[in-house]
Amino acid sequence: MIQISSSSNDYFKRWLSLSSSKGLRQEGEFILMGEKLVREFLSAPLNGFQVRAEIVPAGGKPLLPAKSKIFEVSAPLFKELDVVGTKFNLLVLSVPEFSKPSSLPAPRGLELVCPLGDPTNLGAVIRSAVAFGVSQVLLTEEACHPFHPKAVKSSAGAVLKMPFLKIGPLKNYVSTGVSYALDMNGQDLSTLKWPKDLRLILGEEGPGLPALDGVQKISISTNKVESLNATVAASLAFYSYRSQNKI
Amino acid sequence: MIQISSSSNDYFKRWLSLSSSKGLRQEGEFILMGEKLVREFLSAPLNGFQVRAEIVPAGGKPLLPAKSKIFEVSAPLFKELDVVGTKFNLLVLSVPEFSKPSSLPAPRGLELVCPLGDPTNLGAVIRSAVAFGVSQVLLTEEACHPFHPKAVKSSAGAVLKMPFLKIGPLKNYVSTGVSYALDMNGQDLSTLKWPKDLRLILGEEGPGLPALDGVQKISISTNKVESLNATVAASLAFYSYRSQNKI
Repeated sequence: MIQISSSSNDYFKRWLSLSSSKGLRQEGEFILMGEKLVREFLSAPLNGFQVRAEIVPAGGKPLLPAKSKIFEVSAPLFKELDVVGTKFNLLVLSVPEFSKPSSLPAPRGLELVCPLGDPTNLGAVIRSAVAFGVSQVLLTEEACHPFHPKAVKSSAGAVLKMPFLKIGPLKNYVSTGVSYALDMNGQDLSTLKWPKDLRLILGEEGPGLPALDGVQKISISTNKVESLNATVAASLAFYSYRSQNKI
Repeated sequence: MIQISSSSNDYFKRWLSLSSSKGLRQEGEFILMGEKLVREFLSAPLNGFQVRAEIVPAGGKPLLPAKSKIFEVSAPLFKELDVVGTKFNLLVLSVPEFSKPSSLPAPRGLELVCPLGDPTNLGAVIRSAVAFGVSQVLLTEEACHPFHPKAVKSSAGAVLKMPFLKIGPLKNYVSTGVSYALDMNGQDLSTLKWPKDLRLILGEEGPGLPALDGVQKISISTNKVESLNATVAASLAFYSYRSQNKI
Protein backbone atom coordinates (compact mmCIF):
# COMPACT_ATOMS: atom_id res chain seq x y z
CA MET A 1 0.00 0.00 0.00
CA ILE A 2 1.16 3.48 -0.83
CA GLN A 3 0.58 5.98 2.00
CA ILE A 4 -0.77 9.44 1.21
CA SER A 5 -1.01 12.14 3.84
CA SER A 6 -0.18 15.31 1.92
CA SER A 7 -2.82 17.35 0.16
CA SER A 8 -0.24 18.29 -2.48
CA ASN A 9 0.15 14.65 -3.57
CA ASP A 10 -0.64 14.37 -7.28
CA TYR A 11 -2.91 11.35 -6.92
CA PHE A 12 -4.86 13.10 -4.18
CA LYS A 13 -5.27 16.27 -6.23
CA ARG A 14 -6.49 14.29 -9.22
CA TRP A 15 -9.01 12.30 -7.16
CA LEU A 16 -10.26 15.49 -5.55
CA SER A 17 -11.05 16.88 -9.00
CA LEU A 18 -13.37 13.91 -9.62
CA SER A 19 -16.17 15.54 -7.65
CA SER A 20 -16.74 18.02 -10.48
CA SER A 21 -18.00 17.40 -14.02
CA LYS A 22 -14.89 19.11 -15.40
CA GLY A 23 -12.51 16.87 -13.48
CA LEU A 24 -14.43 13.74 -14.48
CA ARG A 25 -14.18 14.71 -18.14
CA GLN A 26 -10.51 15.62 -17.95
CA GLU A 27 -9.33 12.55 -16.07
CA GLY A 28 -11.65 9.94 -17.57
CA GLU A 29 -12.00 8.42 -14.12
CA PHE A 30 -14.57 8.45 -11.35
CA ILE A 31 -14.71 7.19 -7.78
CA LEU A 32 -17.24 4.54 -6.88
CA MET A 33 -18.39 5.14 -3.28
CA GLY A 34 -20.55 3.21 -0.86
CA GLU A 35 -19.91 -0.22 0.67
CA LYS A 36 -22.81 -1.89 -1.13
CA LEU A 37 -21.89 -0.53 -4.57
CA VAL A 38 -18.17 -1.22 -4.12
CA ARG A 39 -18.75 -4.81 -3.00
CA GLU A 40 -21.26 -5.41 -5.78
CA PHE A 41 -18.85 -4.12 -8.38
CA LEU A 42 -15.97 -6.26 -7.12
CA SER A 43 -18.07 -9.40 -7.04
CA ALA A 44 -19.47 -8.77 -10.53
CA PRO A 45 -17.41 -6.17 -12.45
CA LEU A 46 -19.28 -4.47 -15.26
CA ASN A 47 -18.02 -4.35 -18.82
CA GLY A 48 -16.33 -1.13 -19.81
CA PHE A 49 -15.04 -0.16 -16.38
CA GLN A 50 -11.43 -0.80 -15.38
CA VAL A 51 -10.31 -0.61 -11.79
CA ARG A 52 -7.55 2.00 -11.63
CA ALA A 53 -6.97 2.09 -7.86
CA GLU A 54 -8.38 1.44 -4.44
CA ILE A 55 -8.36 4.15 -1.79
CA VAL A 56 -8.38 2.78 1.73
CA PRO A 57 -9.12 4.96 4.79
CA ALA A 58 -6.34 5.08 7.39
CA GLY A 59 -6.35 1.78 9.30
CA GLY A 60 -8.74 0.11 6.82
CA LYS A 61 -8.24 -3.20 5.00
CA PRO A 62 -7.86 -3.31 1.23
CA LEU A 63 -10.35 -5.32 -0.83
CA LEU A 64 -8.22 -5.74 -3.94
CA PRO A 65 -5.43 -8.38 -4.25
CA ALA A 66 -2.08 -7.23 -2.85
CA LYS A 67 -0.46 -6.63 -6.26
CA SER A 68 -3.07 -3.94 -7.15
CA LYS A 69 -2.69 -0.19 -6.92
CA ILE A 70 -3.79 0.43 -3.35
CA PHE A 71 -3.45 3.70 -1.48
CA GLU A 72 -3.94 4.31 2.21
CA VAL A 73 -5.04 7.89 2.73
CA SER A 74 -4.87 9.81 6.03
CA ALA A 75 -8.18 10.52 7.78
CA PRO A 76 -8.55 14.23 6.91
CA LEU A 77 -7.68 13.66 3.24
CA PHE A 78 -9.97 10.64 3.03
CA LYS A 79 -12.84 12.73 4.34
CA GLU A 80 -12.30 15.23 1.54
CA LEU A 81 -12.47 12.51 -1.10
CA ASP A 82 -15.42 10.69 0.46
CA VAL A 83 -17.85 13.43 -0.57
CA VAL A 84 -20.99 11.44 0.12
CA GLY A 85 -19.75 10.31 3.53
CA THR A 86 -19.49 6.55 3.06
CA LYS A 87 -16.43 5.95 5.33
CA PHE A 88 -15.68 2.85 3.27
CA ASN A 89 -12.97 1.97 0.74
CA LEU A 90 -13.29 3.88 -2.53
CA LEU A 91 -12.68 2.45 -5.99
CA VAL A 92 -11.21 4.57 -8.75
CA LEU A 93 -12.70 3.34 -12.03
CA SER A 94 -12.29 4.39 -15.64
CA VAL A 95 -15.23 6.29 -17.15
CA PRO A 96 -16.29 4.80 -20.48
CA GLU A 97 -15.92 7.35 -23.26
CA PHE A 98 -19.27 8.85 -24.30
CA SER A 99 -19.66 9.20 -28.04
CA LYS A 100 -20.54 12.62 -29.38
CA PRO A 101 -22.15 12.03 -32.77
CA SER A 102 -22.16 14.91 -35.25
CA SER A 103 -25.70 14.00 -36.27
CA LEU A 104 -28.21 11.81 -34.51
CA PRO A 105 -29.66 8.67 -36.06
CA ALA A 106 -33.36 7.91 -35.49
CA PRO A 107 -34.13 6.69 -31.96
CA ARG A 108 -34.32 2.98 -31.09
CA GLY A 109 -36.72 2.17 -28.29
CA LEU A 110 -37.26 4.87 -25.68
CA GLU A 111 -34.32 7.26 -25.46
CA LEU A 112 -34.07 10.08 -22.95
CA VAL A 113 -32.76 13.57 -23.70
CA CYS A 114 -31.62 15.00 -20.40
CA PRO A 115 -30.35 18.47 -19.43
CA LEU A 116 -30.38 18.02 -15.64
CA GLY A 117 -27.50 19.91 -14.04
CA ASP A 118 -28.04 18.72 -10.50
CA PRO A 119 -26.23 15.41 -9.90
CA THR A 120 -28.76 14.11 -7.36
CA ASN A 121 -31.66 14.73 -9.75
CA LEU A 122 -29.76 13.30 -12.71
CA GLY A 123 -28.91 10.12 -10.79
CA ALA A 124 -32.49 9.66 -9.63
CA VAL A 125 -33.84 9.97 -13.18
CA ILE A 126 -31.28 7.47 -14.47
CA ARG A 127 -32.21 5.01 -11.73
CA SER A 128 -35.79 5.03 -13.03
CA ALA A 129 -34.62 5.01 -16.65
CA VAL A 130 -32.68 1.79 -16.08
CA ALA A 131 -35.57 0.33 -14.08
CA PHE A 132 -38.04 0.89 -16.92
CA GLY A 133 -35.87 -0.01 -19.89
CA VAL A 134 -34.82 3.32 -21.41
CA SER A 135 -32.35 2.28 -24.12
CA GLN A 136 -29.93 5.21 -23.87
CA VAL A 137 -29.57 8.69 -22.41
CA LEU A 138 -28.52 11.69 -24.48
CA LEU A 139 -26.88 14.16 -22.12
CA THR A 140 -27.14 17.75 -23.29
CA GLU A 141 -24.42 20.31 -22.65
CA GLU A 142 -26.31 21.52 -19.54
CA ALA A 143 -26.28 18.10 -17.90
CA CYS A 144 -24.02 17.25 -15.02
CA HIS A 145 -21.59 14.37 -15.48
CA PRO A 146 -23.47 11.13 -14.66
CA PHE A 147 -20.48 9.72 -12.75
CA HIS A 148 -20.45 12.59 -10.25
CA PRO A 149 -20.39 10.94 -6.78
CA LYS A 150 -23.83 12.33 -5.91
CA ALA A 151 -25.30 11.09 -9.20
CA VAL A 152 -23.84 7.62 -8.70
CA LYS A 153 -25.28 7.55 -5.19
CA SER A 154 -28.78 8.76 -6.03
CA SER A 155 -28.87 6.36 -8.98
CA ALA A 156 -28.03 3.50 -6.56
CA GLY A 157 -25.33 2.58 -9.09
CA ALA A 158 -27.70 2.53 -12.08
CA VAL A 159 -25.51 5.02 -14.00
CA LEU A 160 -23.03 2.16 -14.55
CA LYS A 161 -25.69 0.25 -16.47
CA MET A 162 -26.89 2.99 -18.85
CA PRO A 163 -25.39 3.85 -22.26
CA PHE A 164 -24.76 7.61 -22.65
CA LEU A 165 -24.28 9.93 -25.61
CA LYS A 166 -23.22 13.56 -25.40
CA ILE A 167 -25.05 16.16 -27.47
CA GLY A 168 -24.97 19.98 -27.64
CA PRO A 169 -27.18 22.44 -25.75
CA LEU A 170 -30.85 21.51 -25.41
CA LYS A 171 -32.01 24.57 -27.35
CA ASN A 172 -30.14 23.26 -30.43
CA TYR A 173 -31.77 19.83 -30.27
CA VAL A 174 -32.94 18.69 -33.69
CA SER A 175 -35.60 16.03 -33.75
CA THR A 176 -34.95 12.89 -35.77
CA GLY A 177 -37.80 10.40 -35.75
CA VAL A 178 -40.41 11.10 -33.05
CA SER A 179 -39.57 13.44 -30.14
CA TYR A 180 -41.80 14.14 -27.16
CA ALA A 181 -41.12 16.67 -24.43
CA LEU A 182 -42.56 16.64 -20.92
CA ASP A 183 -44.00 20.06 -20.22
CA MET A 184 -46.65 21.91 -18.25
CA ASN A 185 -49.09 21.72 -21.16
CA GLY A 186 -49.52 19.19 -23.91
CA GLN A 187 -51.29 15.92 -24.63
CA ASP A 188 -52.22 14.24 -21.38
CA LEU A 189 -50.03 11.24 -20.58
CA SER A 190 -53.08 9.13 -19.75
CA THR A 191 -54.38 9.42 -23.34
CA LEU A 192 -51.07 8.83 -25.07
CA LYS A 193 -50.40 5.97 -27.49
CA TRP A 194 -46.63 5.65 -27.40
CA PRO A 195 -44.70 4.89 -30.57
CA LYS A 196 -42.10 2.15 -30.20
CA ASP A 197 -39.15 4.37 -31.05
CA LEU A 198 -38.85 7.90 -29.73
CA ARG A 199 -36.86 10.41 -27.75
CA LEU A 200 -38.34 11.87 -24.60
CA ILE A 201 -37.02 15.29 -23.62
CA LEU A 202 -36.96 16.57 -20.04
CA GLY A 203 -36.76 20.23 -19.06
CA GLU A 204 -34.96 21.62 -16.03
CA GLU A 205 -37.24 22.49 -13.10
CA GLY A 206 -36.39 26.18 -13.08
CA PRO A 207 -35.94 27.30 -16.69
CA GLY A 208 -38.26 24.65 -18.15
CA LEU A 209 -38.17 23.78 -21.83
CA PRO A 210 -36.87 25.97 -24.65
CA ALA A 211 -38.91 26.15 -27.88
CA LEU A 212 -38.00 23.13 -30.00
CA ASP A 213 -39.06 22.41 -33.57
CA GLY A 214 -40.71 19.12 -34.41
CA VAL A 215 -41.24 18.16 -30.78
CA GLN A 216 -44.67 17.13 -29.46
CA LYS A 217 -45.51 18.16 -25.94
CA ILE A 218 -46.97 15.85 -23.35
CA SER A 219 -48.03 16.68 -19.81
CA ILE A 220 -49.22 15.04 -16.62
CA SER A 221 -52.29 16.58 -15.06
CA THR A 222 -52.03 17.35 -11.37
CA ASN A 223 -54.14 18.59 -8.53
CA LYS A 224 -53.32 21.80 -6.60
CA VAL A 225 -49.56 21.93 -7.21
CA GLU A 226 -48.29 23.46 -10.36
CA SER A 227 -45.66 20.89 -11.28
CA LEU A 228 -44.15 17.53 -10.42
CA ASN A 229 -40.51 17.04 -9.72
CA ALA A 230 -38.57 16.10 -12.84
CA THR A 231 -37.72 12.59 -11.63
CA VAL A 232 -41.34 11.81 -10.84
CA ALA A 233 -42.64 13.18 -14.15
CA ALA A 234 -40.02 11.28 -16.13
CA SER A 235 -40.64 8.06 -14.18
CA LEU A 236 -44.38 8.21 -14.87
CA ALA A 237 -43.66 8.64 -18.56
CA PHE A 238 -41.18 5.71 -18.62
CA TYR A 239 -43.65 3.51 -16.78
CA SER A 240 -46.46 4.44 -19.15
CA TYR A 241 -44.26 3.67 -22.17
CA ARG A 242 -43.24 0.32 -20.72
CA SER A 243 -46.84 -0.62 -19.97
CA GLN A 244 -47.58 -0.29 -23.71
CA ASN A 245 -44.30 -1.73 -25.01
CA LYS A 246 -43.42 -4.79 -23.02
CA ILE A 247 -39.64 -4.98 -22.84
CA MET B 1 -37.64 46.44 12.98
CA ILE B 2 -35.88 44.73 15.82
CA GLN B 3 -32.16 44.16 15.22
CA ILE B 4 -30.57 40.86 16.19
CA SER B 5 -26.84 40.30 16.01
CA SER B 6 -26.15 38.07 19.00
CA SER B 7 -26.32 34.29 18.79
CA SER B 8 -27.52 34.21 22.40
CA ASN B 9 -30.69 36.13 21.52
CA ASP B 10 -33.73 34.07 22.55
CA TYR B 11 -35.60 34.55 19.28
CA PHE B 12 -32.53 33.49 17.34
CA LYS B 13 -32.01 30.39 19.46
CA ARG B 14 -35.65 29.39 19.03
CA TRP B 15 -35.57 29.87 15.26
CA LEU B 16 -32.34 27.88 15.01
CA SER B 17 -34.09 24.95 16.70
CA LEU B 18 -36.66 24.93 13.88
CA SER B 19 -34.31 23.01 11.60
CA SER B 20 -34.86 19.86 13.66
CA SER B 21 -38.01 17.76 14.08
CA LYS B 22 -37.72 18.15 17.86
CA GLY B 23 -37.59 21.94 17.73
CA LEU B 24 -40.51 22.08 15.30
CA ARG B 25 -42.62 19.98 17.66
CA GLN B 26 -41.61 21.95 20.74
CA GLU B 27 -42.13 25.41 19.32
CA GLY B 28 -45.14 24.76 17.10
CA GLU B 29 -43.55 27.02 14.49
CA PHE B 30 -41.63 26.60 11.26
CA ILE B 31 -39.78 28.88 8.90
CA LEU B 32 -41.01 29.24 5.34
CA MET B 33 -38.00 29.78 3.06
CA GLY B 34 -37.58 30.64 -0.60
CA GLU B 35 -38.63 33.80 -2.43
CA LYS B 36 -41.27 32.07 -4.52
CA LEU B 37 -42.92 30.28 -1.58
CA VAL B 38 -42.78 33.34 0.70
CA ARG B 39 -44.32 35.62 -1.92
CA GLU B 40 -46.98 33.07 -2.80
CA PHE B 41 -47.93 32.66 0.84
CA LEU B 42 -48.19 36.42 1.43
CA SER B 43 -50.32 36.95 -1.64
CA ALA B 44 -52.64 34.06 -0.75
CA PRO B 45 -52.22 32.98 2.91
CA LEU B 46 -53.35 29.43 3.62
CA ASN B 47 -55.88 28.55 6.29
CA GLY B 48 -54.39 27.27 9.52
CA PHE B 49 -51.07 29.13 9.32
CA GLN B 50 -50.51 32.34 11.27
CA VAL B 51 -47.59 34.60 10.50
CA ARG B 52 -45.56 34.94 13.69
CA ALA B 53 -42.65 36.99 12.42
CA GLU B 54 -40.60 38.02 9.43
CA ILE B 55 -36.83 37.63 9.44
CA VAL B 56 -35.07 40.07 7.14
CA PRO B 57 -31.41 39.69 6.14
CA ALA B 58 -29.18 42.66 7.06
CA GLY B 59 -29.92 45.50 4.64
CA GLY B 60 -33.03 43.79 3.23
CA LYS B 61 -36.53 45.25 2.92
CA PRO B 62 -39.42 43.82 4.96
CA LEU B 63 -42.43 42.44 3.13
CA LEU B 64 -44.93 42.67 5.99
CA PRO B 65 -46.69 45.92 7.04
CA ALA B 66 -44.62 48.08 9.41
CA LYS B 67 -46.68 47.21 12.52
CA SER B 68 -45.80 43.50 12.22
CA LYS B 69 -43.11 41.60 14.13
CA ILE B 70 -40.12 42.14 11.90
CA PHE B 71 -36.54 41.27 12.79
CA GLU B 72 -33.40 42.29 10.96
CA VAL B 73 -30.74 39.66 11.54
CA SER B 74 -27.00 40.14 11.00
CA ALA B 75 -25.45 38.36 8.02
CA PRO B 76 -23.70 35.49 9.85
CA LEU B 77 -26.77 34.72 11.98
CA PHE B 78 -29.07 34.93 8.95
CA LYS B 79 -26.90 32.41 7.15
CA GLU B 80 -27.34 29.98 10.03
CA LEU B 81 -31.13 30.27 9.88
CA ASP B 82 -31.34 30.15 6.09
CA VAL B 83 -30.49 26.43 6.02
CA VAL B 84 -31.49 25.88 2.41
CA GLY B 85 -29.58 28.96 1.21
CA THR B 86 -32.38 31.16 -0.11
CA LYS B 87 -30.83 34.57 0.83
CA PHE B 88 -34.38 35.95 0.96
CA ASN B 89 -36.68 37.08 3.78
CA LEU B 90 -37.90 34.22 5.97
CA LEU B 91 -41.40 33.88 7.38
CA VAL B 92 -41.97 32.31 10.78
CA LEU B 93 -45.36 30.56 10.64
CA SER B 94 -47.35 28.54 13.13
CA VAL B 95 -47.45 24.78 12.52
CA PRO B 96 -51.01 23.44 12.59
CA GLU B 97 -51.40 20.87 15.35
CA PHE B 98 -51.43 17.30 14.03
CA SER B 99 -54.06 15.12 15.65
CA LYS B 100 -52.89 11.86 17.20
CA PRO B 101 -55.93 9.60 17.31
CA SER B 102 -55.90 6.72 19.79
CA SER B 103 -57.52 4.47 17.19
CA LEU B 104 -57.81 4.95 13.47
CA PRO B 105 -61.14 5.18 11.65
CA ALA B 106 -61.46 3.47 8.26
CA PRO B 107 -59.65 5.33 5.45
CA ARG B 108 -61.45 7.81 3.18
CA GLY B 109 -60.02 8.02 -0.32
CA LEU B 110 -56.32 7.27 -0.71
CA GLU B 111 -54.39 7.85 2.51
CA LEU B 112 -50.63 7.48 2.82
CA VAL B 113 -48.82 5.91 5.78
CA CYS B 114 -45.32 7.32 5.74
CA PRO B 115 -42.23 6.52 7.85
CA LEU B 116 -39.68 8.51 5.82
CA GLY B 117 -37.06 10.01 8.12
CA ASP B 118 -35.19 11.99 5.50
CA PRO B 119 -36.79 15.44 5.04
CA THR B 120 -35.90 15.73 1.35
CA ASN B 121 -37.49 12.36 0.58
CA LEU B 122 -40.53 13.09 2.73
CA GLY B 123 -41.10 16.44 1.01
CA ALA B 124 -40.77 14.91 -2.45
CA VAL B 125 -43.34 12.21 -1.65
CA ILE B 126 -45.76 14.78 -0.28
CA ARG B 127 -45.38 16.90 -3.40
CA SER B 128 -46.59 13.96 -5.47
CA ALA B 129 -49.26 13.07 -2.90
CA VAL B 130 -50.80 16.54 -3.19
CA ALA B 131 -50.46 16.45 -6.98
CA PHE B 132 -52.38 13.18 -7.25
CA GLY B 133 -55.06 13.76 -4.64
CA VAL B 134 -53.95 11.76 -1.59
CA SER B 135 -56.50 12.74 1.07
CA GLN B 136 -54.23 12.69 4.13
CA VAL B 137 -50.83 11.52 5.31
CA LEU B 138 -50.35 9.45 8.46
CA LEU B 139 -46.85 10.13 9.73
CA THR B 140 -45.41 7.27 11.75
CA GLU B 141 -43.05 7.81 14.67
CA GLU B 142 -40.06 7.29 12.36
CA ALA B 143 -41.06 10.12 10.03
CA CYS B 144 -39.28 13.43 9.96
CA HIS B 145 -41.35 16.55 10.67
CA PRO B 146 -42.98 17.62 7.37
CA PHE B 147 -42.26 21.31 8.08
CA HIS B 148 -38.50 20.75 8.25
CA PRO B 149 -36.97 23.38 5.90
CA LYS B 150 -35.62 20.70 3.54
CA ALA B 151 -39.02 18.96 3.42
CA VAL B 152 -40.81 22.23 2.68
CA LYS B 153 -38.31 22.94 -0.09
CA SER B 154 -38.39 19.53 -1.77
CA SER B 155 -42.20 19.56 -1.57
CA ALA B 156 -42.20 22.93 -3.40
CA GLY B 157 -44.50 24.09 -0.60
CA ALA B 158 -46.97 21.20 -0.99
CA VAL B 159 -46.62 20.25 2.71
CA LEU B 160 -48.75 23.32 3.51
CA LYS B 161 -51.62 21.83 1.53
CA MET B 162 -51.71 18.32 3.01
CA PRO B 163 -53.59 17.22 6.15
CA PHE B 164 -51.39 15.20 8.55
CA LEU B 165 -52.07 12.75 11.37
CA LYS B 166 -49.45 11.39 13.76
CA ILE B 167 -49.43 7.67 14.54
CA GLY B 168 -47.06 5.36 16.46
CA PRO B 169 -44.19 3.29 15.05
CA LEU B 170 -44.79 1.61 11.69
CA LYS B 171 -44.34 -1.88 13.15
CA ASN B 172 -47.37 -1.28 15.39
CA TYR B 173 -49.61 -0.22 12.49
CA VAL B 174 -53.01 -1.91 12.69
CA SER B 175 -54.98 -2.09 9.48
CA THR B 176 -58.52 -0.70 9.50
CA GLY B 177 -60.32 -1.06 6.18
CA VAL B 178 -58.00 -1.93 3.26
CA SER B 179 -54.23 -1.45 3.61
CA TYR B 180 -51.67 -1.96 0.85
CA ALA B 181 -47.92 -1.77 1.25
CA LEU B 182 -45.39 -1.07 -1.51
CA ASP B 183 -42.74 -3.74 -1.33
CA MET B 184 -40.22 -5.68 -3.40
CA ASN B 185 -42.71 -8.51 -3.95
CA GLY B 186 -46.47 -8.51 -4.15
CA GLN B 187 -49.27 -8.06 -6.66
CA ASP B 188 -47.98 -6.17 -9.69
CA LEU B 189 -49.18 -2.57 -9.78
CA SER B 190 -50.15 -2.91 -13.43
CA THR B 191 -52.77 -5.58 -12.61
CA LEU B 192 -54.24 -3.87 -9.56
CA LYS B 193 -57.89 -2.83 -9.23
CA TRP B 194 -57.77 -0.13 -6.59
CA PRO B 195 -60.52 0.12 -3.99
CA LYS B 196 -61.85 3.63 -3.49
CA ASP B 197 -60.82 3.84 0.17
CA LEU B 198 -57.49 2.53 1.40
CA ARG B 199 -54.23 3.25 3.12
CA LEU B 200 -50.99 2.86 1.20
CA ILE B 201 -47.92 2.12 3.32
CA LEU B 202 -44.40 3.05 2.28
CA GLY B 203 -41.25 1.44 3.66
CA GLU B 204 -37.93 3.18 4.22
CA GLU B 205 -35.32 2.52 1.55
CA GLY B 206 -32.83 0.88 3.88
CA PRO B 207 -34.81 -1.16 6.43
CA GLY B 208 -37.79 -1.79 4.13
CA LEU B 209 -41.12 -2.91 5.52
CA PRO B 210 -41.73 -4.65 8.85
CA ALA B 211 -44.16 -7.60 8.90
CA LEU B 212 -47.68 -6.16 9.20
CA ASP B 213 -50.90 -8.08 9.75
CA GLY B 214 -53.81 -7.55 7.38
CA VAL B 215 -51.73 -5.66 4.83
CA GLN B 216 -51.66 -6.68 1.16
CA LYS B 217 -48.38 -6.22 -0.66
CA ILE B 218 -48.05 -4.60 -4.05
CA SER B 219 -44.91 -4.16 -6.13
CA ILE B 220 -43.66 -2.48 -9.27
CA SER B 221 -41.68 -4.69 -11.60
CA THR B 222 -38.37 -3.27 -12.78
CA ASN B 223 -35.58 -4.09 -15.14
CA LYS B 224 -31.95 -4.59 -13.96
CA VAL B 225 -32.10 -2.47 -10.78
CA GLU B 226 -33.37 -4.02 -7.64
CA SER B 227 -35.56 -1.18 -6.41
CA LEU B 228 -37.01 2.20 -7.23
CA ASN B 229 -36.56 5.21 -5.03
CA ALA B 230 -39.39 5.59 -2.55
CA THR B 231 -40.72 8.81 -4.09
CA VAL B 232 -40.89 7.28 -7.55
CA ALA B 233 -42.58 4.08 -6.33
CA ALA B 234 -45.13 6.03 -4.31
CA SER B 235 -45.82 8.44 -7.18
CA LEU B 236 -46.48 5.58 -9.60
CA ALA B 237 -48.96 4.09 -7.14
CA PHE B 238 -50.73 7.45 -6.58
CA TYR B 239 -50.96 7.98 -10.32
CA SER B 240 -52.34 4.50 -10.90
CA TYR B 241 -54.95 5.03 -8.18
CA ARG B 242 -55.99 8.34 -9.64
CA SER B 243 -56.28 6.92 -13.14
CA GLN B 244 -58.94 4.52 -11.79
CA ASN B 245 -60.63 6.94 -9.36
CA LYS B 246 -61.11 10.27 -11.06
CA ILE B 247 -60.82 12.93 -8.37
